[in-house]
Amino acid sequence: MVTAIDPTATGFLFAENRSMPMHVGGLQLFKKPEGAGRGYVREMFEQMSDIDEVAPLFLKRPHRSVRTGGQWVWRPDEQFDIEHHVRHSALPKPGRIRELLELCGRLHGTRLARERPLWEAHVIEGLRDGRVAMYTKTHHALIDGVSAMRLLASVLSTDPDKRGMPAPWAAPPTSRPSREREAPELSELPVQALRTALGITAEAAGMPGALVKTLSKGLRNETSALSLYAPRTIINQKITGSRRFAAQDWPIERLRGIGKATGTTVNDVVLAMCSGAMRAYLLELDALPDQTLVSMVPVGLNATQSQIASAEGGNAVGAVMVQLATDLPDPARRLAAIHRSMKDGKEALSSMTPMQILAMSALGQAPAILAPMLRMQGIVRPPYNLIISNVPGPRSTHYWNGAQLVGTYPLSIPINGMALNITCTSYDGHMAFGLTGCRRTVPHLQRLLTHLDDELGHLEQAAGV
Amino acid sequence: MVTAIDPTATGFLFAENRSMPMHVGGLQLFKKPEGAGRGYVREMFEQMSDIDEVAPLFLKRPHRSVRTGGQWVWRPDEQFDIEHHVRHSALPKPGRIRELLELCGRLHGTRLARERPLWEAHVIEGLRDGRVAMYTKTHHALIDGVSAMRLLASVLSTDPDKRGMPAPWAAPPTSRPSREREAPELSELPVQALRTALGITAEAAGMPGALVKTLSKGLRNETSALSLYAPRTIINQKITGSRRFAAQDWPIERLRGIGKATGTTVNDVVLAMCSGAMRAYLLELDALPDQTLVSMVPVGLNATQSQIASAEGGNAVGAVMVQLATDLPDPARRLAAIHRSMKDGKEALSSMTPMQILAMSALGQAPAILAPMLRMQGIVRPPYNLIISNVPGPRSTHYWNGAQLVGTYPLSIPINGMALNITCTSYDGHMAFGLTGCRRTVPHLQRLLTHLDDELGHLEQAAGV
Repeated sequence: MVTAIDPTATGFLFAENRSMPMHVGGLQLFKKPEGAGRGYVREMFEQMSDIDEVAPLFLKRPHRSVRTGGQWVWRPDEQFDIEHHVRHSALPKPGRIRELLELCGRLHGTRLARERPLWEAHVIEGLRDGRVAMYTKTHHALIDGVSAMRLLASVLSTDPDKRGMPAPWAAPPTSRPSREREAPELSELPVQALRTALGITAEAAGMPGALVKTLSKGLRNETSALSLYAPRTIINQKITGSRRFAAQDWPIERLRGIGKATGTTVNDVVLAMCSGAMRAYLLELDALPDQTLVSMVPVGLNATQSQIASAEGGNAVGAVMVQLATDLPDPARRLAAIHRSMKDGKEALSSMTPMQILAMSALGQAPAILAPMLRMQGIVRPPYNLIISNVPGPRSTHYWNGAQLVGTYPLSIPINGMALNITCTSYDGHMAFGLTGCRRTVPHLQRLLTHLDDELGHLEQAAGV
Repeated sequence: MVTAIDPTATGFLFAENRSMPMHVGGLQLFKKPEGAGRGYVREMFEQMSDIDEVAPLFLKRPHRSVRTGGQWVWRPDEQFDIEHHVRHSALPKPGRIRELLELCGRLHGTRLARERPLWEAHVIEGLRDGRVAMYTKTHHALIDGVSAMRLLASVLSTDPDKRGMPAPWAAPPTSRPSREREAPELSELPVQALRTALGITAEAAGMPGALVKTLSKGLRNETSALSLYAPRTIINQKITGSRRFAAQDWPIERLRGIGKATGTTVNDVVLAMCSGAMRAYLLELDALPDQTLVSMVPVGLNATQSQIASAEGGNAVGAVMVQLATDLPDPARRLAAIHRSMKDGKEALSSMTPMQILAMSALGQAPAILAPMLRMQGIVRPPYNLIISNVPGPRSTHYWNGAQLVGTYPLSIPINGMALNITCTSYDGHMAFGLTGCRRTVPHLQRLLTHLDDELGHLEQAAGV
């Protein structure tokens, strides 16, 4: 049975090339349950791969031919081979996080073959601390990062003794615990579709004319509430297909402490950490621009604010352009400036027309699709330097068949002109930072972790906590 | 700089699809040198990947577009990324040969992406016996199995103390020890091109008319010296892209002992082992045909015999169709029948015209290319059931920067109608069998190893050695 591919997904398939693989990834770390035997990881792999039925989403592959009029359609994979999609891997010695991140970078830099369903999962052993890792990659035409996290959470449980839990790709979803019951705090975003945040860009892709018109008006009028411009930096270059991934987490309590002492939010502190880290990183490379870096930050909108049909009365995602204040040397002043910029942006958002919100959001959510449209309108200068998003995850400790999820880190999609992506995700009292970059355009990506850590310390010092 | 792709290579690119990846593979096992530290495998990986210049063969990728008139051409990869091609991997616990073969099967079942140069090498640690493995895959459009083995041998040395030896893909080859000096016994085949054995099919692909005419005449006239037909078996079906690989070696001395006692050659004993193993395997599955299985066996031809221009006065490869006598229950009678069939085939070959030899050889060397041509001529029944080839390797112990090569196993290309391929290679007193099959069409492929071992015992018993 052949089914149509929606315009956004088609956009991702067309935008993809060897330099820009269009898949999102996730890295999870699990702690083995007590009493786990030597063959535990193999058992876990078998539970992940030896399943009765795979969910339709994970069985379809894109196809186009003369008979489909050159259009992409979804087709079930008649030769579906679970052993191709779910893999048991191991890390080289000494099995540090470094080796794990290297493997993830390598896996994330290779495109998914379109002749098969567009996903892969690797159950990875060999971490010297005994934890088990799982790296998954799924094409953006199937799922977005927020939905991928939601899908994972839907197969987890807060009960360490629960067993018989399915793999995220197993069907039918009816046998799964409902999201409401198991993880009510998971996220304020709705679960209508697996590409929720992109419902918005599906529309955007359907009406590029009006969208680009609104957007370019805002971009050109630098004094309006929509005004945004960003300096060119080394991360705003053409990229290659090579990837580097860096990830680390910090206790949310530390971020909250700074927020409380300074009257800012946890998200402001996340942005301030990124800002300070980017400043230190670019200074070290002698590449810090005089003007501040601008970050696109996706934010949740309520229904009245958004008035967007695709949100179906639920919540939608908008985008705020935040001035990161990387031109200010003082951490406290940077944080204050970011807080103001974020507040201004949210206020501007609330005074925008639905079409303007749509335009802003689309710009953030699907830059790879929109970039060519913008170029046609003569908008070449990047309106922002990087995307920093913060995806809420489960707040309490979760388990998969007794294995405790101890960390979860998102891998995102660098694109031409935007060689670095920072995606944060909160889980069980920790804020995890996932940095995905083009290995050639963003040198020494892992140094940003040290800078993030330093900056957290500087912010604490400045806040007196 | 864009260069033309020869017709055979183009044939392999066109014949390739998701069910039939067209790459050959090699698995090598190395013993670490004495005193090797904990980081030895990483050092070896770095020696393999941290190289000054990559040979042009490994830098080009196939490309076609409207501007090339839809023709495939070679193009240098402007974004060449050695980290994509040379990888450091590890085996899951318990790190037995079984886990290694599973990994090789998985790697061998995935197509090489055409947007990059068509090769990959994996330096693999984690074997519990401490050995280091290397799996390489290279597209058949670049290299054939014999040449791949030759290329590997060209960077090895008989001197365990020698260091500074290059990776097989490093340039320039001028710095390499010449084949004559280092491995004079390696093989009787010439090194004119990297696809030597395929020089022949390059011609074949260039003149399909005459070729198919000669071939189909021979195939139809079952009483002629060219006559060949084979029963249908479970391995002669349409295949999928899933792969299983099994490999093991036995001392050549044991094979030679049987040969001496029975007046047969080592190659006859190899074929008898395969025959007995296939018989036992098919019996177990209740799928043994009444008629004997027929194997295509490539043999070396001298210049006078072949008279083929492409051989450039050197040697060329011909093909003999050997009746494997799988209908006979007695091992001794099977070996005798194989010996006769091989002798008949070689005699027939010597009485053939160059065109007939060319036809036979092409049939064996590039079945994936020829199959469509044959079908056009109404030849649907498989002329043979499987290919069993025996590629000579170095006879003495060889080293790579002090690491002793202790085993080398070839992975070949199953195609539609030919779901199993057996390729043997001799090295340092051992005969290695590499069995590559479609995982779905050839169930329990690894059982063939037990059957091969049993059959060797039966043959010894029958020969009274």
